[in-house]
Amino acid sequence: MAADITKYIEQLNQLDISNMYTSDFFLTWEKSDDEIAAVFAVADALRELRENNISTKIFDSGLGISLFRDNSTRTRFSFASACNLLGLEVQDLDEGKSQIAHGETVRETANMISFMADIIGIRDDMYIGKGNAYMHQVTEAVREGYKDGVLDHIPTLVNLQCDIDHPTQAMADLLHVIHEFGGVENLKGKKVAMSWAYSPSYGKPLSVPQGVIGLFTRLGMDVVLAHPEGYDVMSDVEEVARKNAEKSGGSFTKTNSMEEAFKDADIVYPKSWAPFAAMEKRTELYGNGDMDGVAALEKELLAQNAEHKDWACTEEMMKLTKDGKALYLHCLPADISGVSCEEGEVDGSVFDRYRAPLYKEASFKPYIIAAMIFLSKQKNPQKTLQDLVDAAKPRKVE
Amino acid sequence: MAADITKYIEQLNQLDISNMYTSDFFLTWEKSDDEIAAVFAVADALRELRENNISTKIFDSGLGISLFRDNSTRTRFSFASACNLLGLEVQDLDEGKSQIAHGETVRETANMISFMADIIGIRDDMYIGKGNAYMHQVTEAVREGYKDGVLDHIPTLVNLQCDIDHPTQAMADLLHVIHEFGGVENLKGKKVAMSWAYSPSYGKPLSVPQGVIGLFTRLGMDVVLAHPEGYDVMSDVEEVARKNAEKSGGSFTKTNSMEEAFKDADIVYPKSWAPFAAMEKRTELYGNGDMDGVAALEKELLAQNAEHKDWACTEEMMKLTKDGKALYLHCLPADISGVSCEEGEVDGSVFDRYRAPLYKEASFKPYIIAAMIFLSKQKNPQKTLQDLVDAAKPRKVE
Amino acid sequence: MAADITKYIEQLNQLDISNMYTSDFFLTWEKSDDEIAAVFAVADALRELRENNISTKIFDSGLGISLFRDNSTRTRFSFASACNLLGLEVQDLDEGKSQIAHGETVRETANMISFMADIIGIRDDMYIGKGNAYMHQVTEAVREGYKDGVLDHIPTLVNLQCDIDHPTQAMADLLHVIHEFGGVENLKGKKVAMSWAYSPSYGKPLSVPQGVIGLFTRLGMDVVLAHPEGYDVMSDVEEVARKNAEKSGGSFTKTNSMEEAFKDADIVYPKSWAPFAAMEKRTELYGNGDMDGVAALEKELLAQNAEHKDWACTEEMMKLTKDGKALYLHCLPADISGVSCEEGEVDGSVFDRYRAPLYKEASFKPYIIAAMIFLSKQKNPQKTLQDLVDAAKPRKVE
Repeated sequence: MAADITKYIEQLNQLDISNMYTSDFFLTWEKSDDEIAAVFAVADALRELRENNISTKIFDSGLGISLFRDNSTRTRFSFASACNLLGLEVQDLDEGKSQIAHGETVRETANMISFMADIIGIRDDMYIGKGNAYMHQVTEAVREGYKDGVLDHIPTLVNLQCDIDHPTQAMADLLHVIHEFGGVENLKGKKVAMSWAYSPSYGKPLSVPQGVIGLFTRLGMDVVLAHPEGYDVMSDVEEVARKNAEKSGGSFTKTNSMEEAFKDADIVYPKSWAPFAAMEKRTELYGNGDMDGVAALEKELLAQNAEHKDWACTEEMMKLTKDGKALYLHCLPADISGVSCEEGEVDGSVFDRYRAPLYKEASFKPYIIAAMIFLSKQKNPQKTLQDLVDAAKPRKVE
Repeated sequence: MAADITKYIEQLNQLDISNMYTSDFFLTWEKSDDEIAAVFAVADALRELRENNISTKIFDSGLGISLFRDNSTRTRFSFASACNLLGLEVQDLDEGKSQIAHGETVRETANMISFMADIIGIRDDMYIGKGNAYMHQVTEAVREGYKDGVLDHIPTLVNLQCDIDHPTQAMADLLHVIHEFGGVENLKGKKVAMSWAYSPSYGKPLSVPQGVIGLFTRLGMDVVLAHPEGYDVMSDVEEVARKNAEKSGGSFTKTNSMEEAFKDADIVYPKSWAPFAAMEKRTELYGNGDMDGVAALEKELLAQNAEHKDWACTEEMMKLTKDGKALYLHCLPADISGVSCEEGEVDGSVFDRYRAPLYKEASFKPYIIAAMIFLSKQKNPQKTLQDLVDAAKPRKVE
Repeated sequence: MAADITKYIEQLNQLDISNMYTSDFFLTWEKSDDEIAAVFAVADALRELRENNISTKIFDSGLGISLFRDNSTRTRFSFASACNLLGLEVQDLDEGKSQIAHGETVRETANMISFMADIIGIRDDMYIGKGNAYMHQVTEAVREGYKDGVLDHIPTLVNLQCDIDHPTQAMADLLHVIHEFGGVENLKGKKVAMSWAYSPSYGKPLSVPQGVIGLFTRLGMDVVLAHPEGYDVMSDVEEVARKNAEKSGGSFTKTNSMEEAFKDADIVYPKSWAPFAAMEKRTELYGNGDMDGVAALEKELLAQNAEHKDWACTEEMMKLTKDGKALYLHCLPADISGVSCEEGEVDGSVFDRYRAPLYKEASFKPYIIAAMIFLSKQKNPQKTLQDLVDAAKPRKVE
């Protein structure tokens, strides 16, 4: 009955995780390789405990605050699941219901919601230069509140998607890949195609492709970023990817050919996004309240997208990949040709074939979030994991 | 101090409940008599435990997902109460806040919300042929997800009202009746009038009258369904009622006279609903996006309703019942003449006289829902009940 | 490690709190001095326990229902925090999502949400003569429901702001003052300026100034209520303040000069509110559905406000206070000149200087609410506090 988490504890024993306690999680590339590995180890350990019906509650009471500035099903439920798994109750900060619109400052709100908050999860991915900055404002505010004696604790901030990175997504994606390939040690030299794909909607966030190239390049893989001309992502993140690849012994290349990217790829991640430059422009237009400009830009971008309908993950395209069997990744929901739209990111038959693995990919996110919280809140995570195993309190009576 | 739940355990010992573990709850007539009796026994047992301040938490953590596609106070709170009573935290899937509108399939959503969901409660009663079908899609999706290894468990689905049945309502109604009449053994031969009544609003769901005739006919009672010509309910459910009555030694009859139904009735349930044929037509109009047609139909139905203002549960009508003292039932909220509307389903004075029993009727719903969950989640419910009594953990310190 | 709550238990031992068990909390002046003192003692004790990582859960399950009829961040989160701290799960009664609009009576709703509710928190401050009355209807309904056997318990009602008082705010304000001045015994003779201040918005609730004058006058302080002519608060509450002052040996005076109020004040509370007479008129206009009248009134009130832009808590004004260092209070969010508006209640530099104490002031509210709940739910609060210390169950594993 007892889950075997010894191997996860041993993994943690060999990692330097001394800086994780009380630390926030903003961008994966702000974390060391050991810290990334620790999140994976704890995520797997928590999953093993839960699947063996062992309670992983480390909080007797406490709140997890969620602040979503964009619609969400998956990430919202993943955050709620992670909090519940650890014993925290979720409280949504719904900006519609709150007085934030009444001219309240970020600093003030951050403190007001934090008196009993152990965690704050924020999704703010819409505006370039804003989302990540907002999260930093929040965490600076609560740290100042702690210093001033307003708060008796520092709530941990977890980035649930910003304008730069989507760490819980990219790490769930990667943990899925690790499991599919039988271990992180098998990823060296594998080719990953992070490719733009056509979608009839526009303005999809850049944080997914950026998150993927910023993380997958750390493992010695050959990561190719493919997109039509003009669909560049944030250059700072490309720079991160380049340096990661250099250090890890892999590579990071760019191409304007989806075929080239898919050729012999072990892993493909075809997904739509908006050009970084256009998103910067949109942010500026919104900032100036220029709604006519926003509408004009939208029209222009949709027309631009429509020129690239051939960027789709078709059966033909999949045949180009390694043995025609690359692992297909997506953050979901995908724009599926003939299913959710006429022409989209992926053929219905390709999606169907990969449905089960795609859902499994998504299933890692609650555990990734829980692991981030766990590592930030436990001085000695190994001991806590062992204590949970030893206590063996059933999650549910059966 | 310790609650006496021995009798409930003994009741359960005599029932065949071997198929309840891991099973969903869609329609009462899909459950055996023993299974219905088991829900009542567990509901009463959980109530006794709670009223004796004994904790009934069988979950240490876990989520109960609620998906309401129609407004609700009572059922929403009943579901939340049931989940809380057993240790689950409620997470609402608010379709407005989620990405469901973004072309996401039912199958995908069902899996995405279920990674840590023990229960999914759905209310989807607006469109004929849709609600129950939707629930089956959800449960098939999570069962497939389990088979594919996406989920490590199968969340139980509880029908919180569909287009066909409203099982938690009808069972709460019946458990109330059982208590009022001093036991299920006293119901044989009792006359029940499930009657249409006038309401100034239109389009009220059919699931309540259908749920009542589909359930009450199982207990040897004489169930009369009364409505003006043209206000038929779903014929399949009438067929269920007919067969139930035959088997149980009761009767199921129909009449177009409210007086005839009320005559010597022991129990009356006067309530408005929309004609099944009209609801089918409305579903089609909505399906075609024909909003003018919907508006025209609404006008037509309101005019049709207005021809039957004499279908009201007045003091005069109540005098026709057994000793003038039939038990008055309603799922609430009722349209009360002179209170919530000018002319409605029931006289203010009748409603007032039955307020306390009406509220008691409603009070069974959280326990019915909790019992459905409990039976689906416990391999040996009798043992779990005994363990809860023995542990005698206080629900609250006092 | 163990928190020292002996002194709080001793404080409680010397107070008559025999009427607090099962009682609601509507207005501070309906509570005895001992009862007010008990709330402070328990609030401090709960804070000490939490800050020493000792669980204060007295509920194993149960719901805290929140019903907000006005937007709120602070009070909503304070209520959620208080419930969570004690082990209750919050369930929001969102009137938009519920069927309340369907002609449901207060009595019915109150019972329907209460089957498993231990606490009901209501904010209803918009309409004069309505909010407090509504809360009384709710509590009468649940008490009747208990008497009728509908409910097996009586949920406690906590006033989270009504048209008359804002007890959780005023008590959080006062507990902050007590801590800042080193004990309640140091407040005698201190001068408090509860002053109107200019805001570019209109219609801010009267319950804050009313709550402050109705509470602070009980402690022997010299409370001055200052506002421009015509901005009177509810006369009944002024009468309460007058009587309080007489009994406590302090004073309650009124002035139309902000300078006079600030002169040598130890504590200042400059805040905008709407004239009571105007709010009464607005309530009537809304009642008659006279939206043109409401718009005209709003215009008139904004013009009236604009005549008093000199009523601002400027640096000059602060210099008038005791040593230029009065404690500045505000319920937040404040209208800060040059920050959240062009001209407002307070200078940016003044606000900045008091930010940390202002946030601390707000931090007491969750504990005040939790203390109100605790005292209403515990027959012997001293014993329960001691039991919590003795059990020393960690709130979180670290």
